[in-house]
Order: sequence, then structure tokens, then C-alpha cells
Amino acid sequence: MKVKLGVIGFGGMGKWHAQNAPRAGVEIVAVCDIEEKKQMEAIEMGYKLYKTAEELLADPEINTVILTIPNHLHKEMCLLSAKAGKHVITEKPAALNVEELNEMDNACKEAGVFFTCHQNRRWDRDMLTVKKAYEEGMLGNIFTIESKLHSGNGYMHEWHIYKKFGGGMIYDWGVHLIDQILFIMPNAKVKSIYADVKNVLHEEVDDYFKIMMKMDNGITAHIELSTYILDYQPRWLVGADKGTMIVKTFACDGDIYRTGKMLEKLPPQITETEAGPTRQFAPVPPGGIVTEPLPVIHSDWTDFYKNIDDVINGRAEVLIKIPEVRRVLSLMEAVRKSSEIGEAILFE
Amino acid sequence: MKVKLGVIGFGGMGKWHAQNAPRAGVEIVAVCDIEEKKQMEAIEMGYKLYKTAEELLADPEINTVILTIPNHLHKEMCLLSAKAGKHVITEKPAALNVEELNEMDNACKEAGVFFTCHQNRRWDRDMLTVKKAYEEGMLGNIFTIESKLHSGNGYMHEWHIYKKFGGGMIYDWGVHLIDQILFIMPNAKVKSIYADVKNVLHEEVDDYFKIMMKMDNGITAHIELSTYILDYQPRWLVGADKGTMIVKTFACDGDIYRTGKMLEKLPPQITETEAGPTRQFAPVPPGGIVTEPLPVIHSDWTDFYKNIDDVINGRAEVLIKIPEVRRVLSLMEAVRKSSEIGEAILFE
Repeated sequence: MKVKLGVIGFGGMGKWHAQNAPRAGVEIVAVCDIEEKKQMEAIEMGYKLYKTAEELLADPEINTVILTIPNHLHKEMCLLSAKAGKHVITEKPAALNVEELNEMDNACKEAGVFFTCHQNRRWDRDMLTVKKAYEEGMLGNIFTIESKLHSGNGYMHEWHIYKKFGGGMIYDWGVHLIDQILFIMPNAKVKSIYADVKNVLHEEVDDYFKIMMKMDNGITAHIELSTYILDYQPRWLVGADKGTMIVKTFACDGDIYRTGKMLEKLPPQITETEAGPTRQFAPVPPGGIVTEPLPVIHSDWTDFYKNIDDVINGRAEVLIKIPEVRRVLSLMEAVRKSSEIGEAILFE
Repeated sequence: MKVKLGVIGFGGMGKWHAQNAPRAGVEIVAVCDIEEKKQMEAIEMGYKLYKTAEELLADPEINTVILTIPNHLHKEMCLLSAKAGKHVITEKPAALNVEELNEMDNACKEAGVFFTCHQNRRWDRDMLTVKKAYEEGMLGNIFTIESKLHSGNGYMHEWHIYKKFGGGMIYDWGVHLIDQILFIMPNAKVKSIYADVKNVLHEEVDDYFKIMMKMDNGITAHIELSTYILDYQPRWLVGADKGTMIVKTFACDGDIYRTGKMLEKLPPQITETEAGPTRQFAPVPPGGIVTEPLPVIHSDWTDFYKNIDDVINGRAEVLIKIPEVRRVLSLMEAVRKSSEIGEAILFE
């Protein structure tokens, strides 16, 4: 049995799934949208169109739906889809909060359909480069993993700027960035979390956050996003006792930095730098720091839908599990709470 | 009356003061050190030498001393110096903790001498560039000020690696980095502080810390130091709603980044990046971000000793005030405590 997909919501991500899921062997049976403009687009692009989700869900050919609608509608549409006997994939964030997620999960269990979330950034090569360094101990003992995403595009778009639709960057990207950290080190527990969340350019929704997350393996994760830091800092920085890994961009340019010659015994004379005397922060002599290329990672996003196919056919467990999704949503709630009260939240 | 200085401790910083204070018109009367090697060096360099602090303090020509000895000796030497009627300047950190500082401050008050701390990094041009941006609103509303110092020199030196001498990077540099943030925005109160302090390469003492400090003016300060992050991140990053300031090094290379053309309305089509679909984090079109040079700052460290001269002669207040020094020490204690217990410390 093939994945026969109905796409609920034909905005940016709806179109994206309709165009890309077939690369994984998925059949797009139909799409739906309540907006006339998007309906016209669907017809022009040659998709079978329903004007409402109810009509789409009545199509017996569809066995699975992807929910690509604003975040506040995920729960309602999930419940409807489960009731109609369809397997449910939601775009991220799966729900606005843990309570909604539990309701959705229960509905899917009762209906005997499976339920997962499109955490597509588990296939990002930049993140997988860091995960490889962590798993293989390439850098020795890691003390910090920094995940940063900066944009000069400033303002956000469409419904993401409104609170009532589940807008804001914690929902849009925080859900990825937190999920990636947990995915890199799945066995580490989160001890405490402290966050700064701000609206820099937006009235209603967050567009900046910085999160410190102390893990029980001794690593502190630093997660940061801004829609308005104009000199983008590296996407990833991994600090460890045998080197530093920098992954600058999604495209994985960067290096591993190692000490060519460790200055265990610094010269006794203090060095006069541009800013006064220092030994520790004096320039490193030539050859003191050397670089190595990053490991090369291969990754194929179509594995997401191939896994759905395997799940439907009883050949595999679902890759993105609801307890993982729940943990991320729960951390997102802790992030907001920490920022509001100015205290750390003790977690696991 | 001239500043007639006795230098107590002739290690790296003792030599530095002996050589540099005269640039501000200070007379170096004598130096002392209990180590034979350093005594020989002092004689070779032509300084009048005492073998002990007690002998130096008995010299009536000296009106002021600078304490350039390991941190755990500051208190004891300050008390002795005050008793001998000398004005006291300590190297930073002034004391190991607030309790010691109060004892020193009281002793100096009772003896009728003044007491200050050589927070020389208030004259650093890189920091003053950020302070100017803050004071003049050059970047609009600031949401974050990040102060980072990374070194590839790895190991620390001499007594700084031992706990009992007051070693570690919080004492050595944390004291500067925290002081600079408070100096940049002297009227802002610290609401809460959360810190991660680690020993990456050292047995006894900290050599990594990251501190988030939420201020009541809405700015979150981020202070970070590592002796072993090998691809140095910019010394300063200021994020604000009218631009981003980057000061890369002590030497003040860097730029102000501004939006040439703000993308208020993003293209409706999602952009396929190296890492999948995104609108917000798609590359900015050419001309979207423009740079301006940093303001040029002039600063003269000799103002530190010129101020001491003015204070002695009743012409000015001391620039580095003990309540400021106390506040920094108190924050350093909060940093350690936060890291130990994994919680935020509510401050002012």
C-alpha cells in the first residue's frame, strides 16, 4: 500500500509538500484550501481540488493527510482527519501546546491511525555534521553546542505575525532548533533552561530568542534566533577540549580548528595588545591553530516520506515520535515561561 | 603633591605598572617582591628594591601603593598598607569576595586613605565603541549586547591555575567583562543572571563561562570567555532594531550593518535553500544589507593614574568607585552560584 496523500492547506508549505512528496514515491491524491486564490493555483498546477477539508477527508482514496495550515488549526484538523480514518502528518509545530498535542494523540490512537510531525530539519546536513562530531567524539569532550540562526530579512510574513494563528519565531523555528539539539544527543536530559524572548520588530509575536539549556551530560546548548542580526554569526559552534567546530551555513561551509602547538607555558612577559596588557588573549603565534575540513554528510529528506510508507506497511516504526514532539513543545513552554518570569526553569 | 608609588609584587603586572605609570606622571619610588628572581630583575631594571612589603610600607616617600600580587593576598596587603597610611590601588579583582572588600574598604576609611581598583579595561576602545553606540542611540533600541573573548592559548599561567591563589578566569577576566557591561549602561539594574561556568582544560579553576544578564532597560547582556575556542567570535555584537554593530577585536576592526532595503513583504514563494524550504532565512538580495564604519574612539589609559593624582590633590572624585567594585564582585558570586545550582539568581 502506497502513501496516498491529501494536502490540507495550499499555502507555501502545502505547495511544497505537493511538489516534493512525490520524490519519495508518495501519490498526491488531492489538495484543499478555503481561499479562492489558492484554489485557483491548485487547479492551474493540475491538482485535484477540494474546497474544504471535510470534502477532502471524504475521499476514500486518501489514506494519509498532511496538515499545512496555520498552527492554531492543527488540532481541529487533526481530530477531523483521525475521525475520518486518515493517518495524520502535521507541519511543525504539531500543536500550540502540550495539552493540544495530547488531545490529538489520543484521537489518533482511538481512531487507530498514526500521527507524526514533519520535523524536516532532522535531515539538515549542517546539524548532522554536529551530530556526527558528538557521536564519534571527534572533538573530545564538548562543553558547548551553539545553534544560531540570523536573518536580515527583518519582518516575518503572512499569518506568522499574528498571535492568534500561532505566529512567532518560537513556533516557526524554535521548534526545529530545540528538536535538533535533542536529536543530536537523544540520551541527555535537560536540567535547566533560561531564555530571553523578545519582539524586536513585531508587535504581537516573538522574533528573537536566546536559550541556554544545561544538559545532564555536561554540555550547555545555546539556541539563538533573530530576524534582525545583520552580520550572521555561524550557524553552529561546537566548543570542546580537542578542538572547535564551526559550521557557518546550511551549506556546511566551515572548519574544525585544532591547536597545532598548545602554549602550555606562556612567555613570562605580558604581551601588549591593542587594548593593553594580556598573556592569555595575546595573538597565537603562526601555526598555533590549524584547520581541518568538516566531515562530509549525506542526507536525504525523502526518507521522511519513505518512513511513512514503511510505517503504513508495518515495516518500521515512525521516525518522529510523539513523545519527542511533546518534549519539544514542553521546552517551548518553558522557554516562554523563563523569559516572562526572568528565572530558570528546572526541567527533567 | 605627586603620586609617589610603591609597587607591591614584581611579577608581570608589577613590572607593567612600574614601566607604564610614569607615562601619567607617576613617580615609582620603590618596588618589592619576596622572590629572589624578581628581586634580581628589579635591581637589573634599576628600581629601588625592598625585599618585603613591610619594608616598602615603611618608606615615607611613598604615598600610594599598587597591589600586584596574587588575588588571595590583596586583602592582607591592603590592610597593611592602609595601616601604614598609604593610599591603596589593587589590581583586579580587588578582593576574592564582597566580605573581603568590605573589610578592606573599612580599613582604608578608618586610616583616611583612599582605595580603588585598577579596572583598566574601562579605557578599552572596543568597549568604548559599544558604549558610544548605546549612549547616542546609534542603533535604535538595543536588544542584546554580547561581549566575547576567545583564546587559542589554552592553558593559563602561573598562580592563575590554582584555586587557593584566587585563580581562574572569572577572577582574571570576568571581573573586567562584567564591569564593562555595567560601565556601558551605568543606570540599568540587573534583574536576573544565569551562568554556565566550566573547567575545560584546567583541574582546579574555571576557564570557560557564559553569562546571561537581563537588565531592567530591556537589554540582555551576554558575557562569554573561553581559553579554548579556536575560531574567535567577534569581541562585541550589538543587536538592535536599527542595525547591528560588530567590533571584532581589541583593535576595533568591525562595522555597523544596516538594512539597505527591508523586506517587509517577502516573496510569496518559499525559497529552497541548501537546507530545505524557508522564506525568513533565505539569502538577502544584493544591496539588502549595507555597512558603515565604526565610530572612531580615542582613549588614554594614563587617565587612570592622572585621576589618582587629582584625587590625592582634592581635584576630583575617584573614577573607579568601591560601590561599583562591590557590585561586580557580587555579580561574580552570583555567576558561580547560578552555575552551581543550575538556576537563575535574581539580583537587583
